This record gives sequence, structure tokens and C-alpha cells, in this order.
Amino acid sequence: MIQRVDVKYLKKPEEVGLENPVMIEGLPGIGHVGKLVADHLVKMLDVEKVVELYSHHFPPQVMVGENGVVKLPKNEVYAYKGDNSPDLLILVGDYQSISNEGHYELANAYLKIAKDFKVSRIYTLGGYGIGKLIEEPYVIGAVNDESLIDVLRDAGVKFENGEPAGGIIGAAGLIIGLAMLENIPSACLMGTTSGYMVDPKSAKAVLEVLMRLLNLEVSVEDLEERAKEMERLIAQIKEMQEAQIPQFKSDDDLRYFR
Amino acid sequence: MIQRVDVKYLKKPEEVGLENPVMIEGLPGIGHVGKLVADHLVKMLDVEKVVELYSHHFPPQVMVGENGVVKLPKNEVYAYKGDNSPDLLILVGDYQSISNEGHYELANAYLKIAKDFKVSRIYTLGGYGIGKLIEEPYVIGAVNDESLIDVLRDAGVKFENGEPAGGIIGAAGLIIGLAMLENIPSACLMGTTSGYMVDPKSAKAVLEVLMRLLNLEVSVEDLEERAKEMERLIAQIKEMQEAQIPQFKSDDDLRYFR
Amino acid sequence: MIQRVDVKYLKKPEEVGLENPVMIEGLPGIGHVGKLVADHLVKMLDVEKVVELYSHHFPPQVMVGENGVVKLPKNEVYAYKGDNSPDLLILVGDYQSISNEGHYELANAYLKIAKDFKVSRIYTLGGYGIGKLIEEPYVIGAVNDESLIDVLRDAGVKFENGEPAGGIIGAAGLIIGLAMLENIPSACLMGTTSGYMVDPKSAKAVLEVLMRLLNLEVSVEDLEERAKEMERLIAQIKEMQEAQIPQFKSDDDLRYFR
Amino acid sequence: MIQRVDVKYLKKPEEVGLENPVMIEGLPGIGHVGKLVADHLVKMLDVEKVVELYSHHFPPQVMVGENGVVKLPKNEVYAYKGDNSPDLLILVGDYQSISNEGHYELANAYLKIAKDFKVSRIYTLGGYGIGKLIEEPYVIGAVNDESLIDVLRDAGVKFENGEPAGGIIGAAGLIIGLAMLENIPSACLMGTTSGYMVDPKSAKAVLEVLMRLLNLEVSVEDLEERAKEMERLIAQIKEMQEAQIPQFKSDDDLRYFR
Repeated sequence: MIQRVDVKYLKKPEEVGLENPVMIEGLPGIGHVGKLVADHLVKMLDVEKVVELYSHHFPPQVMVGENGVVKLPKNEVYAYKGDNSPDLLILVGDYQSISNEGHYELANAYLKIAKDFKVSRIYTLGGYGIGKLIEEPYVIGAVNDESLIDVLRDAGVKFENGEPAGGIIGAAGLIIGLAMLENIPSACLMGTTSGYMVDPKSAKAVLEVLMRLLNLEVSVEDLEERAKEMERLIAQIKEMQEAQIPQFKSDDDLRYFR
Repeated sequence: MIQRVDVKYLKKPEEVGLENPVMIEGLPGIGHVGKLVADHLVKMLDVEKVVELYSHHFPPQVMVGENGVVKLPKNEVYAYKGDNSPDLLILVGDYQSISNEGHYELANAYLKIAKDFKVSRIYTLGGYGIGKLIEEPYVIGAVNDESLIDVLRDAGVKFENGEPAGGIIGAAGLIIGLAMLENIPSACLMGTTSGYMVDPKSAKAVLEVLMRLLNLEVSVEDLEERAKEMERLIAQIKEMQEAQIPQFKSDDDLRYFR
Repeated sequence: MIQRVDVKYLKKPEEVGLENPVMIEGLPGIGHVGKLVADHLVKMLDVEKVVELYSHHFPPQVMVGENGVVKLPKNEVYAYKGDNSPDLLILVGDYQSISNEGHYELANAYLKIAKDFKVSRIYTLGGYGIGKLIEEPYVIGAVNDESLIDVLRDAGVKFENGEPAGGIIGAAGLIIGLAMLENIPSACLMGTTSGYMVDPKSAKAVLEVLMRLLNLEVSVEDLEERAKEMERLIAQIKEMQEAQIPQFKSDDDLRYFR
Repeated sequence: MIQRVDVKYLKKPEEVGLENPVMIEGLPGIGHVGKLVADHLVKMLDVEKVVELYSHHFPPQVMVGENGVVKLPKNEVYAYKGDNSPDLLILVGDYQSISNEGHYELANAYLKIAKDFKVSRIYTLGGYGIGKLIEEPYVIGAVNDESLIDVLRDAGVKFENGEPAGGIIGAAGLIIGLAMLENIPSACLMGTTSGYMVDPKSAKAVLEVLMRLLNLEVSVEDLEERAKEMERLIAQIKEMQEAQIPQFKSDDDLRYFR
């Protein structure tokens, strides 16, 4: 049985032993940019799962894995002990809330986890949809503490006059908004993206900023490769459109659209 | 007055005296496949009603019976003491939740009942809509414990690479997902079906698998008969479509579409 | 400040001193049939307001009266001490719940009031929309206790094989459904109506049945007059349609459509 | 972390030391009339912020300021100690509730604040959309206490036979409705407006009434200037429509439409 917002600690924060870690959030959203980056970190770093989070605010269903085993919608937090970089607490997962109120309840839970682990800073990751294909994605920022702006600028983040004009919707925005009330200096890093498809190239841009901010090194090869596949796919689509020859891509090529 | 989720025990689990029963869930859903099977079991076996469940998550209305007496939306649990088969706890009913959160709250309640009765395994039943008429329906499975896969395969269940790709929505999925957290090995059995109409033929396929799994014998005659009526009806519809002669079926023939 | 469901007793049930009253419910619904009847009773009988009910499940707004004074959405219960008839508890009001769950929460509150006043029977009133204009409206019934059927038949109520087939939605249905769990024999009386407009003629049919059931006499003149105005209006509309001359009715004539 | 409805007092009411203040509410709504007036008062008067209010009923997002710093959706209450006018408590903010139930929960919170500060009267401000451009906006009123009508009439407020016919939706209506239950005499002042755009001219009309009611003087120059800009803009739009020459306005001119 799971509670409305159900945070299950697999290990107590004091047992995990992180020192004032930096929290990274990368949940599904525009272009899946944040999710791609955070999932990539979990895959590349030597992490340990410390929290599982279930909620009535996730879709009422299970997913079925390749092996026929089902999986409840859940989000997860991974711990990483840094060498040259600060310790990290990485929040990843399948879904954001499907209700408005749920967004607030889940963001509260994420902040509670941050506080339990004595997080010193939070970076939330996302995409910034601009409605057209973009050759060279870059990263724009928003902060909950003006003193962070210079730090981010030095790492290559742009600040553009109140952009995004529509605000930052969902977990990436609410988390740094709530963190302001808790005095945790935090920023949202948004990779520019078309908004039409999963965008590993934008994710790579965000990851590179994040590595500079964290003094962290991870291979970006995997994202680069997926970005290249993506470009080939886009090129093919353009060709098809020009030739007006209907032609269907294999399931494999299309997985980026999911 | 009824609570948000209101589980009324007609008899205490220890009085019912089932021994580590297997729970069967068959609520309304795609092709009403699960409901047809579970209702059929309740009708054919010598069962005893042990739980009634009301909820604010059901539609706010009553149904009116043939005799003019109203009926609140409710789900029910029946107990069956097995001879050669294990004892059973069969969950049937009129509705699933009409809200997202309600699905979770109701699934929690079903799991609570399962635990109160010390259920040893759960089979949830449903349909798997494939969008076209199907001559020979078969049964695909999903489990919450990999060790169940061989058991199910031996009973004729197919496992198809992460199908259903869209996941399993509602009670049939959530129950086995939540059962995983409670360490109750469970599976979802889905009869392939068009998804366009009530499908007793698919239900029969699911029932046959279930009988093998439970070492249980019940007549399938009733489902076969309804399947035949259904086939006649489909044949007539096809004919009508080909002849393009508008012709209306009697109310009786159309009851399958409800 | 008002609670989610806020029942304000103006007088304690024991002070009101009704003896096992019959509860009458007439809230807005199909053709406003139930509301017309219950409002008419409150107007014609010598009643006393005993309960006001506010709720977050009503629309978040106030209405503005002719005098410029606002009015919160609320329902009300009136007490009537009978002479030859039983005592009555009449539930009237502006709205039903605007959420699904709210319907259940409000119905619970109505039942609580019924129990506080030791209600012996409940009649809920409504319309039964049949989709076409109807010359001679009649009353169909649904009960929560089979023994009531003969009583109702004697008063002129018809029972039609499981009608309404779609069930009875909202307060009129839920109240008698919940009353079944509390062992209060109850019935829903539905006047047949087109479903397209407010229908005082159907209301009159329901009122006449109710008067026979309660051994109560009230003038029906007011409903008859409104029914006649309505007929004139319908006649005019038909004429206009036939003549195909666009012509607009005064505000006064159209008030029935609200 | 913020509660479902989270009222954060920056200073205790007894420390603020207002004497039976008048509460003014001006939240976003039709033509943003109420918001324009209340924001103007906060800007022009020597006020002190005393309450911040966050809620799960606001949109789940943050806004991004010109400086790149995010802002959680919140409403605020400002205190003003009057000279010749009564003390004021001014409720302003970014949003109303985005759910029906939330409107009631927030209105309850506003009333709680009013009672904590021993408010003697409440004026809620809004627009009354009439669907066409209006040369000379005027102010219509609705009250929760008939004795206020003469006071308002003397200040230039009109009362029009049960207008607005559709009631007053949201905070402006609910607050005075709930205040009636708390015996706080209150009125809603609505500036007539087209309903199509932000309307500083209508706001000026409301402000002038309010100044008379409160014996308060503030410059209306700012609203007049914005009203003139608006009129130029409308004139330009009309010209463009007549000339049918597509022509785009600068961002600056269009800010009124937001």
C-alpha cells in the first residue's frame, strides 16, 4: 500500500554519509532534456539508490518491462560521493504529477528529502521550448538567489530578461521556488530545444554546463551518439517531406519521439 | 453514510476460514474480459459474499434493477473453499474509480483485503485491446515476480517483449504493482480482444488458462454460448455493412455492446 | 468561514419536535421537476427553516438578489408539522455538487440530517427526461425497499422494468441508495419530462402523487398556471418554427428556460 | 514547504496596530480592474507587507523576474495606517484559485486574516464585463448588508436590479458572501468594462468611488496615463482594422493585453 505521497528511504541519510550534497533534479519535461541529463549521470557515475517515491499523483497504471515484469510509476533518488566534485543527490523518475495540487505535494516531498540530506544547493534541469529546430542549443538559467547569477554565467549560462516569459512549470520551477523559502540557493538550467522531440543535443549542452558547475567529469559520448542518430533522423524526415514519398521508419529510429 | 473508501466486512476473515487463498480480480475494463471471467466464477462456484466495498470514487448515482429497486455502485468480494484447487477470493463489481487518485486508494483497499485474508497469490484479469477482430484470442501475461513466468507459460500464457507497451491501466495493473511492495507474487492475465465490444470468447480463453493455473474445473458453456451469439451478431453486422441495408437489431442482440 | 460540507442547525432537532417525519428532497435537476415541487411545498405550507447547508462543492460564487444583496450558494431544510399528514422535512436549494466526490459527501450530510430528525421515510423527487415533448406527464418510481412498490402503485406511480436505464444520477439517487444502508425505506419519484426545459406540468404530476402518498392537501394552482404559460410559450415557438419568422420573446416569457 | 493554504504572518496583527481597518481585495479578474486598483493603492500609499499567502491551489509554477530570479505564485496583504481615512488592509496578488474547492479554501483564509486584524468592513473590487467597448465606465455594487446600499449610492455606485445576473464568481464574491456569515458588512465594487482587455479607465472609476468611500486621496495620474495609452492603442487597432493593413505593435504597447 502506498500513501498519497510515499517517500521510502532505503537507507537513512546519516548512513549514506553525504556532505552537504548538491541536489540535481531531472524529471520528464520539455524535450526530456532534464531527464536525459539526470539519467545519464545515474548511469555513468558510481551511485547508490537511497530513496524511492511513489504517489497517488502519478498515473494509475504499471509499465511492463521487456522481461514481462511490471513496474509501478516511481521516482528515485541516487547518492553519489564526489572526488573532486561535491557529493550529489540525483532525483530521477518516470513521471511528474498528473494533478495541479500533486505538483505542490511532490515538490514539498523533494524539499523534505533535500533537507534530510542537508543539501547545500539544488540544480533543477529542463528544456526551454522555442518552437523551431535549433542548431546550437545553449543553456538559460533562472535562480532563487541573485548571488548565483555570476556563478552560472561563468559556467556559460545565459540570462535573458525574464525568460521564460511563461514561467517554469512543474517540478523544475516549484523546487527552486520552495527552496527559496528554505534558504537553499538553487537554480534551474534549461537547454533550448524545439519542444517537438526528445533532444539529446540540448541535454549535452546542459550536461556540459553542469560539469563545469560541479567540477565533474563524465563522458558525454552516449548523449553525442544519440544526438547524431537524432540528426540523421531529422535529415531523413526533411528529405521525405521534400520528396513527398511516404516512408516509415523502423521502431528503433522512432524511439526518440517517445 | 459511506466513507471515501468504505470496506464493509460481512464476516471476519478468520471466520471465513480460507487457507492462503488466491485472489482473482475481474472488474470492468477492455472488452469486459476480466469482469466476464470473475462474474462467471462467482456464478458457477459455491461462493459466499464476504466483503462489500463502496466509494466516493464510484459514479455518484444508483442503478435501477428490473424490480424497481435501486443499487448503489459497489464492488464485492466472494470466498470459495477449494476442493482440488486452492481457496479463492474473487473481487468483482460494477465500476473502477472515476478519478486518478481514486484508483490508488481503491487498489490500496483491495491489497488490505488481500492481506487480511493472507492471500498467497493474486491473478488480475483483463483484456488487451489490439484494435481489430481476432479469430483465436490468446492470453498474454505480466508478472510482479519473474519466477511466475514459467508457471504461466506452462498454462499457455504468452509473454511478448514488454507488451502491453502502454502499460496496464487501472485496478488490474495497480493491484499487482502494489502487491510487489507487499511481496505477494501476482500476475495479470490479459485476453487479446478487439477492444470494440464485450468479448466472451476472449474471456473463455482467460478462464481456460486460469483453470489450468488453479487446477479448477468449471463449465465454460455459458461463455461459449455468449461467444456464439456474439459471432452471429458480428456476422450480421458485416452482412449489413456489405449490403448497405440499414436494419436494426433487437435490444436483446445488442446487449453485448453495453 | 465554511467547512467542506457545513451543516448549520438553526434549531436542534429535539427542539423542532417533529415525529418521525418524512423527508422530501427536491434539488435542481432534469426539468427542475423536483425543485419545483419542493419549493412549492415550502411556499404553500407553514414551514420553519431548521438547517442551512453550505459546501465547497457548490460553485465558488455568490448570486445577487433584486435588492443588490448577495447570497452564498446554499441548501436549506424546512420543517412542517402535519395535521392529517405526517410531519415533513423538506430539503431544497440552489445547487447540487459540482464534483463527483462532493455528491457523495453531500448525500452523507443529507442522511445525517435525516437520522438526526429520526426520519421514517424519504421521497426524493426528480425528472425523467425522455427527449420529446410529452402531453400527459406521469410519474415513475424507484425504491430502496421492495415493500414500498405497492404503496407507490396505489398512489399512481408506474414501475417500468429497470427504468431509468441509465440509473438515477446525483442527490435523488444517492440519497435513497445511502438510505438503504441505514434501513430507511425510501423512494425516488420521477416525473416524465422532455428534459429540454423547466417543466411545471410534470412537477404537478409529481406533486399529486406526493399528496396522495402523504395524505396532504396543497393548492396546485400556481404550478398549473406556470404550466399553462409554458404551453402558450411552446405553442408560440412551434408557430414561429412553422412560419419560419424569426421573432423574439420578451424576457419574461423566457424565464422558464433558465 | 508550503501547506495547502499557507498563510505566513510577517508581523502579528497586534504588532501592526491597525484599528478596525477596512479590507480592500483586488485580485486578478475581469479586465484586471480590481487588481489595477489594489496594486495602485499599494504603490501610492505608505504600506507595510504583513502577510504572504501561498497555496497548492495556485498554478504549479514559478514566474521569472527581469533579474532572472524566480517568484512563487503568492498573494500578499499590506497594512496602511490612515490619516483622515480609516486604516486599510489591502489584499493583492498574482492568482486566484485554479480549482473550485480552492476558491472556498482561500476565501476562508482571507476571512481568517480579516478577523485576526478585526476588520470592520470589506470592499472587494472587480470588473463587470458587458461585452462591448465602453466610453464612460461606471461602478455597480453588490452588498452583503442592505444598510450599505445608501452609503455606496452616495459615493456614486449604481445598483441595477440583480446585476450581475450571472452572480459574482471567485474571491470578490465569495469573500463578501462569507463575511455575511461573520457579520462583517461588505460590498463588491465592479467597474463596467468590455471584458476583452486590461482596463485602467474602469479601474480609475472604481478608485474614485473607493476614495470617496474611504475619505482617501491618492493620485490617479498613473491610471489615467495607462488609460490614455490604452485608448491610443484601441484607436490604432480600429484604424488598422479599417485599413485592413496588417501591422504589428511593439511589445510595449501590447503589454496591456496580458
